[in-house]
Amino acid sequence: MQHIPSYQDTFVKYLEAYIEPKEPNTLYDPIHYILELGGKRLRPILTLMTAEIFGGDYKRALDAALSVEVFHNFSLVHDDIMDDAPLRRGKTTVHEKWDVNTGILSGDAMLIMAYQLFENYEPKQFQDLAKLFSKTALEVCEGQQYDVDFETRDDVTIPEYLKMIEYKTAVLVGAAMKMGAIVANASEDCQSSIYNFGKNLGIAFQLQDDYLDVFGDPETFGKQVGGDIIENKKTYLYLKALEFSDATDRRQLEHLYGVNPTDASDKIETVKQLFASSGSAEATKTEIENYTQKAFSVLESIKISEENKEALRAFGNNLMNRSV
Amino acid sequence: MQHIPSYQDTFVKYLEAYIEPKEPNTLYDPIHYILELGGKRLRPILTLMTAEIFGGDYKRALDAALSVEVFHNFSLVHDDIMDDAPLRRGKTTVHEKWDVNTGILSGDAMLIMAYQLFENYEPKQFQDLAKLFSKTALEVCEGQQYDVDFETRDDVTIPEYLKMIEYKTAVLVGAAMKMGAIVANASEDCQSSIYNFGKNLGIAFQLQDDYLDVFGDPETFGKQVGGDIIENKKTYLYLKALEFSDATDRRQLEHLYGVNPTDASDKIETVKQLFASSGSAEATKTEIENYTQKAFSVLESIKISEENKEALRAFGNNLMNRSV
Repeated sequence: MQHIPSYQDTFVKYLEAYIEPKEPNTLYDPIHYILELGGKRLRPILTLMTAEIFGGDYKRALDAALSVEVFHNFSLVHDDIMDDAPLRRGKTTVHEKWDVNTGILSGDAMLIMAYQLFENYEPKQFQDLAKLFSKTALEVCEGQQYDVDFETRDDVTIPEYLKMIEYKTAVLVGAAMKMGAIVANASEDCQSSIYNFGKNLGIAFQLQDDYLDVFGDPETFGKQVGGDIIENKKTYLYLKALEFSDATDRRQLEHLYGVNPTDASDKIETVKQLFASSGSAEATKTEIENYTQKAFSVLESIKISEENKEALRAFGNNLMNRSV
Repeated sequence: MQHIPSYQDTFVKYLEAYIEPKEPNTLYDPIHYILELGGKRLRPILTLMTAEIFGGDYKRALDAALSVEVFHNFSLVHDDIMDDAPLRRGKTTVHEKWDVNTGILSGDAMLIMAYQLFENYEPKQFQDLAKLFSKTALEVCEGQQYDVDFETRDDVTIPEYLKMIEYKTAVLVGAAMKMGAIVANASEDCQSSIYNFGKNLGIAFQLQDDYLDVFGDPETFGKQVGGDIIENKKTYLYLKALEFSDATDRRQLEHLYGVNPTDASDKIETVKQLFASSGSAEATKTEIENYTQKAFSVLESIKISEENKEALRAFGNNLMNRSV
């Protein structure tokens, strides 16, 4: 197996070769723009890594890896329209740089292009990849819809929240890995185990993201610390704090999640303290650890070398120990 | 072969069985709403008809037919957002009844669902159908983008316009028929011929639509007669009138396509007269006839019974002789 930076290098070169000027440029320029914005390329790297772990040639997995990345970026373009987000990875979003209609149509084209990237696989693999892709993509849409619905609901439960992040974020991590397994002709058992590894790691990753959004280091965290609090996002931290708090604290928290002060620094500070004092912060860290361990325990049953298991655990630990 | 109303009946029953309540209903209700709005279901009927013409069982083509209809409705939902259209088939559009975000996300889900409808076909057919679908869907996006681009361009040529309507409208008619041929295991020659039949008929159909938008009977034409003139749409009629007119008439026409009067009746009347007096109206009718004949001549080379050819010609003539 290769090192992460080597996979990343290969992938980015492959992506760049994929991007070439095409007419109508008003449709394809925005697609190339978002694909070139960067990002860690975690999902496609996982596809390549998994293909090799199951004895396949990672080069054969490049199209599947690219499909995952194109789909992920499709979802960013459409989500940014829905959230009216001005920035993505520090750069202007597609619908801001062009307009909403361009964002819609370029996004649509990307979703189709993601399917086209499976066309070089033989029919059985093509069908397996496309079926997994469709199931996953539809779950991502459902997750996004739940996320939107939760904004206007006061009775979101923790199981509902976990299902939302599973659909919106984690299933794509699982699918990215399973695609590598499909390309490598791994058994269905292996495919399903590695999917569950990725899915659980994806849930841990998203909970970690929620945690760092509040308790991360402003110097190194990519996004604005406190962003979720400013937007009154009902994250795991918030729901757990409500559960653990007495009536007074609960009222204060609910009140704070109903206001949008111009200067949010006091609000952020108070909420942060409530998350800590209620025990929610600790509970969230425990939950992150639980999902990480759940992912690792799935690994045990997979028939791959101890060396490969160690590589996957290292990848997982690396993700979970990030401070950014 | 069956009669059109019989195919339509079977298809609508199949569509209704497909539509069942699903969570999150905020995502799926709008999808069911648009699919149940009606319409002539021309594309799926063509899929079923073509399957039978090539000796297949039309029932096996129902999933492919439904995929075409779901895709067509996906494109309506997203196009209506882009055009800010309040009405579709006389009913409120999805983004008006719900909101723009719902329109975007429900549309995305429909595009994925259209692919899923191929999953019951065996791998080779699945791949053939999905490849054709992706190529077609991407062309439809490109056609829509050209249509948007043309709004702000003064130098659109007639070949460009024809390419735009080919992509935006006609390729889906061709693909709907080719899918029927794929399901019936027709030869590649037959698949390609029936695609060209459908595509040429689709171009004729769209030119006819442009013509009727100006010269149709207000009593029977589904949309507002003169709608394209009000919106300054550079249709075949307009481009041909510019080509045929002297400098004075050309200036008048260009001037009229630069204004948006509150009461458009005078503008519509003048433009209509210019379309007629320049010879553009006649030229458009000739072009409709040319594409219809082009479609019919493709039929000659296909190895199907004379009876089936006659049925396809009857379908084409029926479409072209509509006054609505």
